[in-house]
Amino acid sequence: MASPDMMKPLLRNSVEVEQALSELKCPTVGILGSGDFARSLATRLVSSGFRVVVGSRNPKRSASLFPPGAEVATQQEAAGQADVVFVAVFREHYSTLCDLKEALAGKVLVDVSNDTEPSLRLQSNAEHLGSLFPECTVVKGFNVISAWALQSGPRDGNRQVLICSDSREAKSSVSHLARSMGFIPVDMGPLSSAKEIESIPLRLFPSWKTPVLCSLGLFCFFYGYNFIRGVIHPFVTKGQNSFYKIPVEIVNVSLPCVAYVMLSLVYVPGILAAFLQLRHGTKYRRFPGWLDRWLQQRKQIGLLSFLSAALHAVYSLCLPMRKSARYHLLNDAFKQVKAGQESAWVEEEVWRMEIYLSFGILALAVLSLLAITSLPSVGNSLNWREFSFIQSNLGYTALLIATLHTLTFGWKKAFNPAQYKFYLPPTYALALVVPCAVLLCRTYLLLPCVNARLTKIRRGWERGRLTRFQLPEEMGHCNVNSAQEDVSNV
Amino acid sequence: MASPDMMKPLLRNSVEVEQALSELKCPTVGILGSGDFARSLATRLVSSGFRVVVGSRNPKRSASLFPPGAEVATQQEAAGQADVVFVAVFREHYSTLCDLKEALAGKVLVDVSNDTEPSLRLQSNAEHLGSLFPECTVVKGFNVISAWALQSGPRDGNRQVLICSDSREAKSSVSHLARSMGFIPVDMGPLSSAKEIESIPLRLFPSWKTPVLCSLGLFCFFYGYNFIRGVIHPFVTKGQNSFYKIPVEIVNVSLPCVAYVMLSLVYVPGILAAFLQLRHGTKYRRFPGWLDRWLQQRKQIGLLSFLSAALHAVYSLCLPMRKSARYHLLNDAFKQVKAGQESAWVEEEVWRMEIYLSFGILALAVLSLLAITSLPSVGNSLNWREFSFIQSNLGYTALLIATLHTLTFGWKKAFNPAQYKFYLPPTYALALVVPCAVLLCRTYLLLPCVNARLTKIRRGWERGRLTRFQLPEEMGHCNVNSAQEDVSNV
Amino acid sequence: MASPDMMKPLLRNSVEVEQALSELKCPTVGILGSGDFARSLATRLVSSGFRVVVGSRNPKRSASLFPPGAEVATQQEAAGQADVVFVAVFREHYSTLCDLKEALAGKVLVDVSNDTEPSLRLQSNAEHLGSLFPECTVVKGFNVISAWALQSGPRDGNRQVLICSDSREAKSSVSHLARSMGFIPVDMGPLSSAKEIESIPLRLFPSWKTPVLCSLGLFCFFYGYNFIRGVIHPFVTKGQNSFYKIPVEIVNVSLPCVAYVMLSLVYVPGILAAFLQLRHGTKYRRFPGWLDRWLQQRKQIGLLSFLSAALHAVYSLCLPMRKSARYHLLNDAFKQVKAGQESAWVEEEVWRMEIYLSFGILALAVLSLLAITSLPSVGNSLNWREFSFIQSNLGYTALLIATLHTLTFGWKKAFNPAQYKFYLPPTYALALVVPCAVLLCRTYLLLPCVNARLTKIRRGWERGRLTRFQLPEEMGHCNVNSAQEDVSNV
Repeated sequence: MASPDMMKPLLRNSVEVEQALSELKCPTVGILGSGDFARSLATRLVSSGFRVVVGSRNPKRSASLFPPGAEVATQQEAAGQADVVFVAVFREHYSTLCDLKEALAGKVLVDVSNDTEPSLRLQSNAEHLGSLFPECTVVKGFNVISAWALQSGPRDGNRQVLICSDSREAKSSVSHLARSMGFIPVDMGPLSSAKEIESIPLRLFPSWKTPVLCSLGLFCFFYGYNFIRGVIHPFVTKGQNSFYKIPVEIVNVSLPCVAYVMLSLVYVPGILAAFLQLRHGTKYRRFPGWLDRWLQQRKQIGLLSFLSAALHAVYSLCLPMRKSARYHLLNDAFKQVKAGQESAWVEEEVWRMEIYLSFGILALAVLSLLAITSLPSVGNSLNWREFSFIQSNLGYTALLIATLHTLTFGWKKAFNPAQYKFYLPPTYALALVVPCAVLLCRTYLLLPCVNARLTKIRRGWERGRLTRFQLPEEMGHCNVNSAQEDVSNV
Repeated sequence: MASPDMMKPLLRNSVEVEQALSELKCPTVGILGSGDFARSLATRLVSSGFRVVVGSRNPKRSASLFPPGAEVATQQEAAGQADVVFVAVFREHYSTLCDLKEALAGKVLVDVSNDTEPSLRLQSNAEHLGSLFPECTVVKGFNVISAWALQSGPRDGNRQVLICSDSREAKSSVSHLARSMGFIPVDMGPLSSAKEIESIPLRLFPSWKTPVLCSLGLFCFFYGYNFIRGVIHPFVTKGQNSFYKIPVEIVNVSLPCVAYVMLSLVYVPGILAAFLQLRHGTKYRRFPGWLDRWLQQRKQIGLLSFLSAALHAVYSLCLPMRKSARYHLLNDAFKQVKAGQESAWVEEEVWRMEIYLSFGILALAVLSLLAITSLPSVGNSLNWREFSFIQSNLGYTALLIATLHTLTFGWKKAFNPAQYKFYLPPTYALALVVPCAVLLCRTYLLLPCVNARLTKIRRGWERGRLTRFQLPEEMGHCNVNSAQEDVSNV
Repeated sequence: MASPDMMKPLLRNSVEVEQALSELKCPTVGILGSGDFARSLATRLVSSGFRVVVGSRNPKRSASLFPPGAEVATQQEAAGQADVVFVAVFREHYSTLCDLKEALAGKVLVDVSNDTEPSLRLQSNAEHLGSLFPECTVVKGFNVISAWALQSGPRDGNRQVLICSDSREAKSSVSHLARSMGFIPVDMGPLSSAKEIESIPLRLFPSWKTPVLCSLGLFCFFYGYNFIRGVIHPFVTKGQNSFYKIPVEIVNVSLPCVAYVMLSLVYVPGILAAFLQLRHGTKYRRFPGWLDRWLQQRKQIGLLSFLSAALHAVYSLCLPMRKSARYHLLNDAFKQVKAGQESAWVEEEVWRMEIYLSFGILALAVLSLLAITSLPSVGNSLNWREFSFIQSNLGYTALLIATLHTLTFGWKKAFNPAQYKFYLPPTYALALVVPCAVLLCRTYLLLPCVNARLTKIRRGWERGRLTRFQLPEEMGHCNVNSAQEDVSNV
């Protein structure tokens, strides 16, 4: 016979299970605050199937601001009804919530706040909230999500919700919430990571900083170099006024150098990584920090190279439009007539120019394809093999064509002493150094014996280890490396 | 002792709970109809883990059309087995389903139909279905989803499923279904919203209408103005035939004016909003409707400005290719030779042109960056600060450079009486009016005292309200405004 | 009175239900292997709320490699604790797992491996695994997902996880797993499909192959044709050296032909499909395979057409920059001066060129819009009507403008016997054939009587069937066809 004592836990269980089920279907979420973020959050939660109770100091006034599905109550009521409460209030006003201490005890508080500027405070907003409500579990999260993303539904790129907390359970419920709203929760560890999470929305293109500085530096160098050779030299030696070249012509000979050197810089870190792997005989030794960062910024370097190349193309196409080009042409016509020279044709010059232009257009076309596949939505639709085919093979093709373009531009200038103005070699010769080194190293790595060893290392082989016990643990997987971190495309 | 009476609800509960659990894991969904949409829906449902029963008039013939996981039965059977039944049948054939009235009683019917053209009917398809099946609960939904999106899996941009119904519960089950299929359900309220939802797939770029009309209007105005000044005036006053300028040259001087004025129109509504906020001393007063719409169409206006600028660039680059340019050049050479003038060089003209070209190229480059970040996949990968940096700072930079481009183009023309043909001022002077006003207002708003007040207002401060009780309710949140609605980037 | 016997199943039930619930909330997943893929998988699973046990041969060494949330144990322990076990080990090392046979019996094994190169083996990796572990249920899946996608969270485009297995239940649990991780599982049928799934990551742009070959073929044909007419003919007949035209000029007259013919080829299959539908009187008869494939590659054909057109534009803009153009101009100036001809103006030539350029720029602008809406993130944000408006109406507009561009280029050449070099008609006349046929057929299909019949067929009407019993089953749905498969935009 079942004794009533035996029944009790059963009853409790089945009732609890029912509650759990109904909670699973439609749990209650609280929101403190009635600003824009609170409103968008309520909208998203309601349409994701949650019961929402908003706690407002002035429920009557706020009710009209919220979507019809959300209940607007006093702060006390909201704090009492929900297990998870979002705190959508500025840090400087956390203290005004202290009356709710009792009602909030034991609950999970989600801190969604951001700093509006890089802050000097030692304590993150979330930790500050935690110190004010020691009986609550604080979870940091959702601050990287904009009110707009909340309202319009999560999109690619900003679907990630970074979450941290000292309580594993609280983190798990908030993660569950985030998933139900269509976001992808990412566990960032203990609450002490809140400082870092709070600083994310204040970042301004951190991965672009070094590449942009690098290309600006290269541009300044080449601009100065060309300015000396193209403007100062004729002025000093022949008193010739070529200052009109400053805005367009000097820029237009500097840009391709930047584009060309930057393009080669995309492939330098991959080659260095390959040499390191060959030397260490393993892929499990970490690269030095600078190389890691360089590998991760290849996309940005490549896009800046494309930007410079595109600008060079536009500048070049503008050349015949200039008054200076027109005047030069008219004066040449005048000279030709005076000299009675019927034909101005120089076959070699004609051919050099036609070939030079062809290579330039082809290089730009290939670079454009590379830039298009850098668009997130295009790149995401490629499989790994297609992506690496484009980024590696097409990239090296672009570098090769750009080298031919540069060589045809230079032609025989490097062997003409008159080109060494102030003993400075022609610009194009300088620009050729790094790219040619890259192409040579790449060729070396493609030698069958070197390539075979590298491939073996990248599938997990290590020098001086027994293969039998090692390999089963390591799965190279054709897709294994990240697009940014992959170094197999040297 | 537990009495059997006490047991019953318990038993019932736990069995129900089990059923609920198994339903949670794999519920049955019905589909009436066997067209393309029905097939795609079945495919998606099956691969999302649902049991699918398709009701067909001719199950044998239809069975081969459906994916292997879906069961194809008679309409009666399908209607009987599922709690949620999709009605994938044209409105004009709803009445043929009337035999199923009994089998469908108490079920949730999902109306997925669309109008094929803007309809004059007063009743939406969903409401019509509801009137035919009064014992069912009708939910409108999924009509904005294409059969293709169903088959290939939901993608960004079209992941939203708009849902409306008079029954909260029915809406919640259909929302749950949509979520399981990878879509984001959006609650649109009662069934009376069905009319609106049904009209969505018939929309044709509604947000582009005003911006396109506006830019066409500007183009016509500037084209007419330039036609009078550039073709009619020389013909009337000197009998000079310049009609060949109609297809290219007149277009090319009108396009930049359109691009330039449109670019400034992107920033007018933000400035108006800031002035309104300053005047009202609060950000909680709604803007007038036209201003709201204008704010929301800034992206479109900006893209049309970029389109005009890009066309202007292409037209300009084509100028030296034209026969007319060639003939002019040849005739100038002839004149120069006849006049015995050795050098045609005019230093001022050369410099004007070089500077003018430089500014033009730079403005186009900055506008291109703006256009690229307008691509959904690129914009979504930026955080709020990056997005507003690009859209606001880079945007104003483009406006400034475009102003310099325009001023260098104009040079001293505005002070030359010969340029006032038919007393009409030069075109570039007209185009400068709005942009310069925008730049002046922006400068005013950046004055420290004005800017500080505006920032305060945008963080929720209101004139004449006690701060202590107001602020905790309002959370500005660095991310708070939408990309379209945000006005903080004046 | 409740007898203990009666209680037992109840107890069992409620305990099981509880377990099921806790499993639903946080199930345990095993991973065998400790390579990159295993690590990324562990990271994603942990952050998706699963308990993860990694089985490693050397747990101490591996522990530091895995995220803190994942438990690293021996292979035996991992195999024992989880119901679903991922096998992240190379195929060649499957046999090293044989010690785990007992511990794995009855479990679901997920094979995530890929071939690194198209393999000649008859048995897929997954089937091989199944033959080694006959007491396990093998599911193939996740091989199309890169380690990077796992770590950074799924994105558009690569959110699909293809799954196959002979056990429906196992498939369903793995599908559930995939969904929880943010992916979209796609059921690919029995385990014998594993071969196909394993080959997917090795594909290299399969849908681009035919279009690329086709455009290369067209280019070679037109290049050869133009080479004969433009270089060989003057050399043979007049001994004139025009070989300098090879790199730029001949390319530049061949590219527009390729662009123009390719653009018309986008619309040929739609027209053929419409004629087939009209002839068969139904839309339910399958198209021949080649037509299906052609319909699916229209996007690629269109993009290649745009690429050729863009290259043609760049080449054309480069023409005036060439030395050859400069020399021709100088020589013409010389001749004009010698002839004492004051004006070189030819009104007809001027007008032809201006109109020709205008049409070219417009056609390129329209093609650019089409190309932009081909970007996944842009296309996905359009509704069906907008997408088909762009792709069909704008596409035909581009074809029409391109036809006018070609006709203005040709002008009166087709009627000039001197243009028939070696009896070969001018190139532009050849290029006009297909596009003009397409435009004529399209016009025919737009005739009211033809169009009405076609619309009826596309809404499901069939010749010789009773409408009353047919139509309710077929729901055309305004959105019904896929972007690739739709043929309603003829």
